[in-house]
Formats: sequence, C-alpha cells, structure tokens
Amino acid sequence: MSARIPKTIFSGIQPTGIPHLGNYLGALKNWKKLQDSEARDTRLIYSIVGYHAITLPQQPGILRQERREMMAALLAIGLDPHRSIIFHQDQVAQHTELAWILNSFTPVNKLQRMTTWKSKIATLKNSNDVSEIDDSTLNLGLLSYPVLQAADIMLYKATHVPVGEDQQQHLELTRDLAEHFNRIFKCRKFFPLPTHLITPASRILNLRDPLSKMSKSHPLPTSRIMITDSDREIASKIKSAVTDSDSGINFDALNRPGVSNLLTILADCEESTPEKVSIGLENSSQLKEAVAEALVQSLSPIRGAFHRLSNEHHYLDELAKKGQKQAAYIASDTMNHVKKHVGLD
Amino acid sequence: MSARIPKTIFSGIQPTGIPHLGNYLGALKNWKKLQDSEARDTRLIYSIVGYHAITLPQQPGILRQERREMMAALLAIGLDPHRSIIFHQDQVAQHTELAWILNSFTPVNKLQRMTTWKSKIATLKNSNDVSEIDDSTLNLGLLSYPVLQAADIMLYKATHVPVGEDQQQHLELTRDLAEHFNRIFKCRKFFPLPTHLITPASRILNLRDPLSKMSKSHPLPTSRIMITDSDREIASKIKSAVTDSDSGINFDALNRPGVSNLLTILADCEESTPEKVSIGLENSSQLKEAVAEALVQSLSPIRGAFHRLSNEHHYLDELAKKGQKQAAYIASDTMNHVKKHVGLD
Repeated sequence: MSARIPKTIFSGIQPTGIPHLGNYLGALKNWKKLQDSEARDTRLIYSIVGYHAITLPQQPGILRQERREMMAALLAIGLDPHRSIIFHQDQVAQHTELAWILNSFTPVNKLQRMTTWKSKIATLKNSNDVSEIDDSTLNLGLLSYPVLQAADIMLYKATHVPVGEDQQQHLELTRDLAEHFNRIFKCRKFFPLPTHLITPASRILNLRDPLSKMSKSHPLPTSRIMITDSDREIASKIKSAVTDSDSGINFDALNRPGVSNLLTILADCEESTPEKVSIGLENSSQLKEAVAEALVQSLSPIRGAFHRLSNEHHYLDELAKKGQKQAAYIASDTMNHVKKHVGLD
Repeated sequence: MSARIPKTIFSGIQPTGIPHLGNYLGALKNWKKLQDSEARDTRLIYSIVGYHAITLPQQPGILRQERREMMAALLAIGLDPHRSIIFHQDQVAQHTELAWILNSFTPVNKLQRMTTWKSKIATLKNSNDVSEIDDSTLNLGLLSYPVLQAADIMLYKATHVPVGEDQQQHLELTRDLAEHFNRIFKCRKFFPLPTHLITPASRILNLRDPLSKMSKSHPLPTSRIMITDSDREIASKIKSAVTDSDSGINFDALNRPGVSNLLTILADCEESTPEKVSIGLENSSQLKEAVAEALVQSLSPIRGAFHRLSNEHHYLDELAKKGQKQAAYIASDTMNHVKKHVGLD
C-alpha cells in the first residue's frame, strides 16, 4: 500500500457520438499528445463515461449508437489501445460502488452549491441564464454527478487530471474526498490528491455565434465542424463562419471573437499560436481559406480512420472488452483495499 | 422478458452484529417463518445491507465483526442457505449500479421530504425530536438511501417485501421508480411493482423505557435482550424490566406499555396472542417468570447455534460466497437487461 503510486492520468468524455472540433481540439487531441509525450511508465486511462450521460434524459437507441461512435472516434484520433487504457465507465461497476462509499461523507449542501448541475439544466432547457434555474427539477443523478466523477478519478489513483475550467470545482471536491478518506480511515497516502494537469487545450467557439462554446446541441449544424465532416462541408462551414467587418486580421478574443476563434483553430492545427499564424493574413477570406485547408489536412486522416472503424462493431466490442478488463483489474484492486479500510470485508 | 415473474420476497437487515430481541421478533423470526411456509417456487432473498450501514459513521473493525456476526445470526435463527439466498449486499456491485441509474430520475425534492433520514440523524445525535434536525448535517449517502433500497428490491424483481411501518414510504418510492422505468423505457412489466408483505411481526419495546423501541444504541444493556444472552442474563433483564403498579395483568399498550410489551414477547414465543397468554397471570412477577422461561426456551437453541457458528470464519465466508454467487447471478441478468433498455450496451 505504501508502494509509490505511479503517475496516472485519468480523463473521461461523455458518449456524445462523433466528436466536434471543440471536443477534439479542447480535449481529445490533448489525450493523444499525452499518449505521445508521457514517459512509458505513466498510466494513461481514458474513459467514455456513460453513467454521467444518463444524468440528463437520453434516447436509448441514440445513446447506444453514440457510445460506440465515441469509441471509434477515440481510436480514429490516434489513441492506441496498446498504450492507453480506453474503456466504457459503465462496464466497470466499481465506479458506482466507490461513489456510494464516497456519498457517505459528501455533504448535500456542498453539492447544492456547485454550479455545474445548474448549467446542465440550463443547457437542457435552452436557457442561457443559470439564475433562472431552481432546484425543483433537479434529480439525484445530476446532484451526485461530481461524486461519481471523484470515484472515476480515485478508482485508478489518478495523480493528474486534465480538466476544463468548468470542472475545477469537481477536482477540488475529489481532492477533499480523497483527503477525507485517507484521514478517517487512517490510511495516509492511500488515495493520492490528484492535481490539475495544465494542458494547452483550446476553447473552441460556435462558428455562427462566437460568444458561446461550440456545442453539439446548437440547432444550426453549420455552427460546428464534426471530425468526420467532408472536405466540402469543412470549407462551406468555415466560409459561413461569423467574423466581423474590421479590416486586417489580428487575435483579439474580446473584440473579435469570430476571427480569434478561427485563428485559434488554425494555430491548433499548425501547432503554433494564434498570433503567429495571423501574420501575413490580410482579410477574413484569406483566413478562412487557410483554416479550411488546415482543417482538411488535420481531419481527413481521422475521418478515414473513423469510417473504417465505425462499422466494425465486433472489433470495437473486442477493444471495449479489452479496456474493460484492464480498467476492472485496477478498479477491483482499489475497491478490495477500500473495503478493507471501511470494514466491509 | 415477458416470462412470468416468480413470486420473490426480498428483505434486508443492517450488519448490526448480534441481533436483539426486537430485531428477532420484529423481523428475523418472520424471515424464518416465510422460509418454512412459502411454496417451494417462491424465491427468498435475504440480504445483509452493508452499504446502508455506512450511511452513518462506522468503526471499520466493529463493522467487520458485526457483518460476520449478522451472517452467523441469520444461520443460527434457522435460515437455510439451501432454501434461501443469504448474502452481503456490499458483495454484489450491481446494487450500486442500478441505484445510479435510478438516481437519474429520482427528484432530490422527493428525497428531502422523506422523514427517515431525519430520524436516523436524530438517533445518531441521541435527539428524540426529529424537528430539531435540519439538513446541514445531511450527507449524500443518507439522502440517497431510499434509492439504494429501491435498487436492492428491484435488482431481484422482488414482488413482495416485508417492511416495517417506517419503511413504507421507501416501498412507495420503489414502486414509483419501477413504474417510471417501465414507462420511459417502454418495457411494460419489466420491473414488477413490489407490494408490502403483511406479516405478524411485533414491535418490541425497550425493557427499561417501554415508550421507545428496543434498540442497540440505548446506553443501558439491560434495556434489551440479545439473542445470545445466557439464561441468567435473560432472567435478570426480564426481572428488572419496567412494568407498573396496577393490579392484575392485562394487555393495554397505551396505558400499560411495559406489561403489554412483556405480553407481546410471551405471545410471540408461544405463537399466541397477548390477550390469550395473559389469562391466568395474576401479577408482574408471575408474568416475568413466564416471559423469562419462554425466552430461555426460544433463544437457547439459537444461542447454541450462534456460538458454534460464529467462530467458524471459513465456513461463514464460504456461505457468504455461495450467497454472493446466487445473488449476483440474478442481479447481473437484471442489469444486463436494464442496460439494454437504457441504451448502455
């Protein structure tokens, strides 16, 4: 138990089907980068978190398909099942077991003060204003969500978690729960206190409304690029992206959100910075051409891989099974120790 | 799926160690009676619910021991592992998985209105007044408790649940959740709506304070009979039981709670009614003698069996393993179907 805990990176994504560019540049591309750059003995654990998805209403048929599409997408972007553990959270029951144990020392008040459930309900209701949301429609799944997320992380004794800004309060809760467990069950250092992994992930905005995030739920399909979009779709969506009528091209996220968003995308594709890629670009149409070209180059191999993989249900199921076994191996070891500490053995 | 659901009785008890007479006459003796009287094709599923126990703080060493003692006690009172499935809930992960899924359509408001969590906190704080309890000390485990209880029942598609009065609101919630699941996932009759099993179980009162229930947590050990008490302990505790100074012996729960409690115990031991057993008894000391004698007769075989069993850790672990396998077999079948309905497959 007092053995050194290996550097372990955990991250999860909801089974939302084919990722859009915001998912890809905002999170998934970074998963691949970590896979390429981390030392060989760093554990990389990537999870498709179906048990989080159901905290909002889902259509079973769509969820089933989107769960499988997300698995295909993770492979298509270059995650390697020989290097990273890639698995469906809902296939490893220990997540809910550990969450239940953590429930017993999570104050309800603390969860009610979290803002994430409010913004989820707001999104669901297409309301932009979180203050309109009261807790009358709150279900227990949405309230408990951060505790399951803590269990996701703690089950693998993750030491590093790449999380977005909106999830930082959840990571803070995870640290609290890990620290609390170690203390009340007198097992110092059993759970590491995970730290936020600073990553260069970008926040990609809606192409038609660059004041909000790119999102799957926005009614306009032209507001987002899917990682499987054809060259033509990419060109046409970028062409119709909202920019502004100012002259020249410069990065100014506050005053020129549309232009800046395109620069961010271009910079991400070229592994550069928005400022650098803006040099030499004279107007929106040049910028858009450059962005479309860079995206086509970045996404076409992913699109190809996705289309090859997405219909190979048997292969995807085999890989999911493999990931499930690897994850369950670690998870059951942790839970055996957790139960010993708690006295449930 | 449309196959007839067999009559299935589910009941759970917390791992509180050696049961007292209130546990025995109020619940466990009835489990044994059902085992003896139910048709051969009725499924009997009895669970020691460790995951409920931890919703209040527990000492790991004591919990570990009490979990094992409860298993020994269930066998000692005559439950037969060849006839009934006897298992530790915390060894079947599907309980927490199903609970998580039910969380997603359980309104938080509804749980906050339940009174049971308040009375649990009140007991913990030795407060007699539920109205003194606000929700500032409420943890998520205690709030979610009724949802896990619904999962316990639904996982085995239980049709009948022997529950005490204080648990009826939880059974109502279980019915709501089962009905809701069947409706939104369009699988009519997948989950049966369990019904309350009316049983002749008695409410046994504190011997030293017959206005409250017999309880494990009362500071006076003479306030309760343990099912392992020696003949001498039984005689002495019954002798010191609080009665009243009225003349004669008659059953009047309101005005003569102490005397009536003893008559209830005597009636339970003799499979009779308090009114019938009171006939011929002239005073408290005659009543107490009769109660002590009947208890010694009822409990001494249980005590013997308990002492034989309780140190056979290997045997108890084997039986727990057997029960776990039987329970998990049903539970995993249910969860496979649940996941198909929900789209997590």
